[in-house]
Amino acid sequence: MDNTNKYTTKIRIRYNEVDKMGVVHHCRYFVFFEIGRTDLLRQSGFTYKEFEDKNLFLPIINVSCSFKYPIKYDDIILVETTMDKMTSVKIEHSYTVWNHDKTVLHATAKTTLACVNRNGEIQKIPCFLHNLIGSQRNLSN
Amino acid sequence: MDNTNKYTTKIRIRYNEVDKMGVVHHCRYFVFFEIGRTDLLRQSGFTYKEFEDKNLFLPIINVSCSFKYPIKYDDIILVETTMDKMTSVKIEHSYTVWNHDKTVLHATAKTTLACVNRNGEIQKIPCFLHNLIGSQRNLSN
Amino acid sequence: MDNTNKYTTKIRIRYNEVDKMGVVHHCRYFVFFEIGRTDLLRQSGFTYKEFEDKNLFLPIINVSCSFKYPIKYDDIILVETTMDKMTSVKIEHSYTVWNHDKTVLHATAKTTLACVNRNGEIQKIPCFLHNLIGSQRNLSN
Amino acid sequence: MDNTNKYTTKIRIRYNEVDKMGVVHHCRYFVFFEIGRTDLLRQSGFTYKEFEDKNLFLPIINVSCSFKYPIKYDDIILVETTMDKMTSVKIEHSYTVWNHDKTVLHATAKTTLACVNRNGEIQKIPCFLHNLIGSQRNLSN
Repeated sequence: MDNTNKYTTKIRIRYNEVDKMGVVHHCRYFVFFEIGRTDLLRQSGFTYKEFEDKNLFLPIINVSCSFKYPIKYDDIILVETTMDKMTSVKIEHSYTVWNHDKTVLHATAKTTLACVNRNGEIQKIPCFLHNLIGSQRNLSN
Repeated sequence: MDNTNKYTTKIRIRYNEVDKMGVVHHCRYFVFFEIGRTDLLRQSGFTYKEFEDKNLFLPIINVSCSFKYPIKYDDIILVETTMDKMTSVKIEHSYTVWNHDKTVLHATAKTTLACVNRNGEIQKIPCFLHNLIGSQRNLSN
Repeated sequence: MDNTNKYTTKIRIRYNEVDKMGVVHHCRYFVFFEIGRTDLLRQSGFTYKEFEDKNLFLPIINVSCSFKYPIKYDDIILVETTMDKMTSVKIEHSYTVWNHDKTVLHATAKTTLACVNRNGEIQKIPCFLHNLIGSQRNLSN
Repeated sequence: MDNTNKYTTKIRIRYNEVDKMGVVHHCRYFVFFEIGRTDLLRQSGFTYKEFEDKNLFLPIINVSCSFKYPIKYDDIILVETTMDKMTSVKIEHSYTVWNHDKTVLHATAKTTLACVNRNGEIQKIPCFLHNLIGSQRNLSN
């Protein structure tokens, strides 16, 4: 349904994700974005688990998020994840979080990942990842 | 030790805060910042709990964070929280996360809070909060 | 597929649910059981959210869990939730956690819930809940 | 103050630890117990971190917990951790969670840990751990 740069993940809010205010705690959004990135990768036929099995990791080095409208317990949300740019060592994603029928915008966000090995040393993003997401290349100019 | 605009919180990293990579998961930093903000308020003689007891809440509306160097299990970190600005409806904080002796910078971040009631409607930040943090005013021009 | 006393929930393990040992942190299992209970209730045509909207809550008063075999990142697990007993004020569930094809048993557990109002005062479990799960009655003798 | 078998940890409840009901989510208690065990070990001059650095791990194989009275946001709780028994491959602890002045009992719990290596294979608990907690021995017979 989505192209290889974009994926929409549907998530139902768990009880423990909601705080005393009755809304999803802001730190949880970053878990949703992580699920979104993982699903985006998975649709290209590769998993992040396999990536780590090769002793490569993609830690977050930068995030920003704007919270527009609170999410409640048991809500179904849509997390749209887009890969915006892949350079030789970094990957940038953006995210839009909608309610179930896309009539309410809950949040927008951006993250930057670096590619490192187990010792935290910067690594070139391997070719297979560039190839998997070939249509990305022209975005990364 | 700190003035009313700034506070340093010491936190020991818990086992469950560290992920598969062996480092603190990025979503946890936002919990540390929340503890920092709470401690900053507490030193002024007021607690966030009392604030919510008055049916006022300070949800996050914007965050950004730059992750510089990973934090490991059992590390002791220092979270320096500074209130940068308080307007009639918003509060801006910045954060610096150091290792125990301030020789390693782990992260820097900024957040913006809005003041709302239980229904999520924007409220004026009450006078007592402005007064508590009087020296803030000249920052908020 | 399941009867009204039993439900199987499929869950994919999230990155942040795995700890430094590379396995799901034990505290996370209780989140899975909560999802299992919620799904069991949902299949009877009622949601836990509606329950709380009536100012009724079902906090946990007792848990026990036996961890048999570790669960890893990206694993798909099956959480079988069974309602074993419903008395006038308590509900007992048991849980079995399997791997995706039920060849590996990950954990077994039991929980007891009490019915309370917002002030934490014990309440009789309402008739509609007993009725929804009618076949339960003969178990609760 | 405590002997080598027992330790009391003081913990202030964080905002994100409290759920929609306004009380600490039950899964969080297991994090408190983990902090209690870690602190108990630390007072004997050894850290769990050093233990894992030796490629030894102490995963939980059994827990039970009885929740007596809810804990609220910003509460200070006392977690009393006692090591009850150490055999050649297992360690049993019990826990009592009190409010700040020990007038309210929040919870009691028990856990059993096994000693394993990184591959999850059962290992004998090393002598140094038995020695550290020498007075334990007569409890384990």
